[in-house]
Amino acid sequence: MKKVLLCEPNISEGKDLKLVEQVAGQIKKVKGVKIIDQSSDADHNRSVFTYLGEPEAVLEASKAMAKKAFELIDMTKHKGSHPRMGAVDVAAFMPVRGMKTKEAVEIAKQFGKFVGGLGVAVYYYEEAATKPEWSKLPKIRKGQYEALEEKLKKPEWKPDEGPTKFNPKAGGMVTGVRMPLIAFNVNLRTTDLSIAERIAKSVRHISGGYRHVRAIGLALEKEGMVQVSMNLVNYLKTPIPRVLETIRSEAARYGVNVAGTELVGPVPLGAMEEVFKHYLQVHDFKLEQIIENSLLD
Amino acid sequence: MKKVLLCEPNISEGKDLKLVEQVAGQIKKVKGVKIIDQSSDADHNRSVFTYLGEPEAVLEASKAMAKKAFELIDMTKHKGSHPRMGAVDVAAFMPVRGMKTKEAVEIAKQFGKFVGGLGVAVYYYEEAATKPEWSKLPKIRKGQYEALEEKLKKPEWKPDEGPTKFNPKAGGMVTGVRMPLIAFNVNLRTTDLSIAERIAKSVRHISGGYRHVRAIGLALEKEGMVQVSMNLVNYLKTPIPRVLETIRSEAARYGVNVAGTELVGPVPLGAMEEVFKHYLQVHDFKLEQIIENSLLD
Repeated sequence: MKKVLLCEPNISEGKDLKLVEQVAGQIKKVKGVKIIDQSSDADHNRSVFTYLGEPEAVLEASKAMAKKAFELIDMTKHKGSHPRMGAVDVAAFMPVRGMKTKEAVEIAKQFGKFVGGLGVAVYYYEEAATKPEWSKLPKIRKGQYEALEEKLKKPEWKPDEGPTKFNPKAGGMVTGVRMPLIAFNVNLRTTDLSIAERIAKSVRHISGGYRHVRAIGLALEKEGMVQVSMNLVNYLKTPIPRVLETIRSEAARYGVNVAGTELVGPVPLGAMEEVFKHYLQVHDFKLEQIIENSLLD
Repeated sequence: MKKVLLCEPNISEGKDLKLVEQVAGQIKKVKGVKIIDQSSDADHNRSVFTYLGEPEAVLEASKAMAKKAFELIDMTKHKGSHPRMGAVDVAAFMPVRGMKTKEAVEIAKQFGKFVGGLGVAVYYYEEAATKPEWSKLPKIRKGQYEALEEKLKKPEWKPDEGPTKFNPKAGGMVTGVRMPLIAFNVNLRTTDLSIAERIAKSVRHISGGYRHVRAIGLALEKEGMVQVSMNLVNYLKTPIPRVLETIRSEAARYGVNVAGTELVGPVPLGAMEEVFKHYLQVHDFKLEQIIENSLLD
């Protein structure tokens, strides 16, 4: 099975679209790499690229992308409403197909070393974090670009790669590995928002629910329904069917049914595999059996 | 979305594997076409190739394959235990992805015209049939190769393409379009074979069940279970979840649970789409949302 890695870097430029295109061009010119999404926000003054391909090609594209972004973006002049610490602010690698987390971490570290070699302080986060305090992006980015110079003087902020000397033009970069996030919403046949809120609490991590679920309750005024709106941050450890069946069971306590669900944006086939296996009880099913997959190999 | 068509021809040679490889070579040399399965049976004296790709490429490969098979195989000398009517006995085209049946029928007819032009009598079957009596292969092939010369003399057997004059070396060919067949088995937690047999009857077409289901009950001696063993011949019109839920409900009448299921061999993603939509109630899901699919486009 061909391996597929996804990379999603955020760069600190969202107004000068010609500059953004120059950076995107570095990704596009790598054979076998495909940009599946790209968006720029002028208020945030920030752009995000989503691209995928075989791991080595994605690494090559990421290096070329970063080199160009560090060349063109000057953080001493950057203003924007979104928190940021550097010209390439954060780049998340996500294993999509046929890859273990560990292999993706290897790629992220090769990328980190490369950026460190460009004279930029690099911190590893999520699955690539070298200490628990650096697992989450907001903790590393605390104080943003403006605080970085002082932080770099402290031993506990010695970066994973690159110099401890502050690079004013580039700032610092965060990279690492996380699972692709699944945006999954469950609509309930009631207008009672408190039911959606109670159910959101029952499934989300912070209030005692599943470890890899973030959830809130929302009113869908127009539809006359309420929604449990979720991010599933690890679809292998907390799979879609388990969360949905818990919601069904909790909703039944209030005599409420699930009206429908929404999967928003891209979904890896691996997340859908859990759906087949759970509901069809098809214990030995292999993704390789899907005819279209043979075209990827 | 890139279109994917699958073709599965059966040729009347299963002993001379060098000859079979020469025929397969014609398929392999077409860019963008991939053989996903190939098998030869010496008793049947017959080989089957399964290959897929974009429709035009699959058509090109099929023409080249057929030309070589008609060149190398001499039906006047063919002996084998499997029913057959010609050197390329039957070639089924199956729309796998992004294609309507009608488009696949167009390709099958282009293939039929080509083979007719080689001086071979061609009959269209299944979705490409030009009369209801020719919908099923066994009806067209009745009497096999040996009966074809006499049949061709009768006006009701005038072929869809090619000459009415018998071609002894080539025989006749059947081609057309059908859906990929899904082999789906449901294992039940009982050793009572009669329960599997009664459930098979309740879901299969001939005894009043779903139109596109063939089913039998089997004992799984080693596992201490019984099985409803099925072919789903149109997974869009009779989808997997509907059949499984009917089996669950029928089994519950006897206090029997489903122990697990098996999907045997290749499955198109479109068949799995029905599974997500049914069980997740994810009404607006599009296959394009599956990340890996973007690599096919």
